[in-house]
Amino acid sequence: MIGEAPNAEVGQEFSSRRLAHEAGVHRPIQAGICGTKASGAESIVLSGGYKDDEDYGEVIVYTGHGGQDGSGNQVNDQTLDDTGNAALVTSYLEGQLVRVLRGAHKGSKFAPKSGYRYDGLFRVTSYGSKLGIDGYRIWQFRMEAYEGAPFPIIADRESIHTVAELPIADDAGGTPVGNETPERATTTMQRILRSIAVKRQVKAWHDNRCQVCDLRIEVPGGSYSEGAHIQALGRPHDGPDITGNVLCLCPNCHVMLDAGAIVLSDDFTVIKAGIEVGPLRTHPQHSISLDCVRQHRERWRQ
Amino acid sequence: MIGEAPNAEVGQEFSSRRLAHEAGVHRPIQAGICGTKASGAESIVLSGGYKDDEDYGEVIVYTGHGGQDGSGNQVNDQTLDDTGNAALVTSYLEGQLVRVLRGAHKGSKFAPKSGYRYDGLFRVTSYGSKLGIDGYRIWQFRMEAYEGAPFPIIADRESIHTVAELPIADDAGGTPVGNETPERATTTMQRILRSIAVKRQVKAWHDNRCQVCDLRIEVPGGSYSEGAHIQALGRPHDGPDITGNVLCLCPNCHVMLDAGAIVLSDDFTVIKAGIEVGPLRTHPQHSISLDCVRQHRERWRQ
Repeated sequence: MIGEAPNAEVGQEFSSRRLAHEAGVHRPIQAGICGTKASGAESIVLSGGYKDDEDYGEVIVYTGHGGQDGSGNQVNDQTLDDTGNAALVTSYLEGQLVRVLRGAHKGSKFAPKSGYRYDGLFRVTSYGSKLGIDGYRIWQFRMEAYEGAPFPIIADRESIHTVAELPIADDAGGTPVGNETPERATTTMQRILRSIAVKRQVKAWHDNRCQVCDLRIEVPGGSYSEGAHIQALGRPHDGPDITGNVLCLCPNCHVMLDAGAIVLSDDFTVIKAGIEVGPLRTHPQHSISLDCVRQHRERWRQ
Repeated sequence: MIGEAPNAEVGQEFSSRRLAHEAGVHRPIQAGICGTKASGAESIVLSGGYKDDEDYGEVIVYTGHGGQDGSGNQVNDQTLDDTGNAALVTSYLEGQLVRVLRGAHKGSKFAPKSGYRYDGLFRVTSYGSKLGIDGYRIWQFRMEAYEGAPFPIIADRESIHTVAELPIADDAGGTPVGNETPERATTTMQRILRSIAVKRQVKAWHDNRCQVCDLRIEVPGGSYSEGAHIQALGRPHDGPDITGNVLCLCPNCHVMLDAGAIVLSDDFTVIKAGIEVGPLRTHPQHSISLDCVRQHRERWRQ
């Protein structure tokens, strides 16, 4: 199950993997990553098993799975085909949160003195490969602590971006110098709660293919799309958060839908800048709300 | 100047527009919106002048400018060509924060009892038009209170999205029911500080045209692009937040760059899924860091 552990408090300690398993924090007794490419990663264990790991407390650089011999040396390259690594890629693309279990080891000052500790939910904010200390290719996932959401799953990569990056103002004029070593800060914001399951369902029906332009963005280890609300949520729009009000779109068409560059006719023809460009791709199980389509179109009448 | 008022505290009251002007909260003495299409909106005044306004405290539905007679009745349609309305569209597309000055009036329980109050920074999270109470077309901008950022400007629409929406988990299985009336919640997160000016400069050099696919997303009232870091910020990538490490991309190419579906060769040829698809569009003033290009490409070696 993705999200917070049903039977454990953040910070709770466990004397063994077995007890962490029973509390639903990390189900496997051996594997460091729990999850599949299809579902994403439920949880990981950070216990010093990979010498390339980096632990900064709220930020973890987590080394993927595979390529080790019995004594913890890399003897082969890691790949994204590995189930655990593929699961973490899905977590990145879907913006899912991952439970982190820290195990006692000397490599991190954030590790518990003994046993294991559930340290709550993290999200994968970037990943990539490099040559590890032992000279073989490893995949690493940057993970950032997440807190404050009443429900611990976010919908898409848009969110990850802003969690990972907070812009600063330095408009001094002239060509900006920028910053060689960006710092971090905390921010607080109000948001409209929205359903992850609704977006997931729509994206699944359309297999991540854009209903407007037919594009399916392929990336190493997966594909990417966004669930876009037709009638916007909140005042003054008051759109419902239901599958009938959500389209599976590529990010570009999502921008255009939100800013009125794309509207839909009553027969679901896509109208771009006033010109009919073709039918919206539909799916037998995905019935789209005509009310929402009309409200959105009306909203962009000039 | 965009962002927090240099000479005023949030919550500070002013007995007149003139004093709010002198404190740098809202520069015009008459106009309700301060800004231009080019710069975006610096500040707005919410003082009951438009009967279609809605004030929920942390959320404001702000009616655009124009179309009124002397006694505050709509007698014409509003348009996005109006300077103030165009400025608020730019604030939405650029993700800029807008200062809000509330004036005393009976229409809102959040208004001060007398005079004016600086209520801090809000962002435009959506907008659109509708027939107003008087039967003429008005444009309305949903604005949400923003707090917690050490510097009050954000970089692009990606951010707005997640500020406006926080997904909730309701994976009960089966077709999700969703939520007819989404609620709100507060969340707190750590982020890497990044420069808005760096992104702005790169987007300006390329006039919002994608350096990879050449697309320029046109929407009513403006165009849209994103500033994408080549070498990612933070551990383990440690990319610098400088113009040489930022590309002007459409959202789709941004996703592909971040997930390794696009890499660049040393001569800045775009390589998509291993195939050279053509040169990166460049700009004489935009010199791209070869180190960053190499780090990014290396990061996606399989």
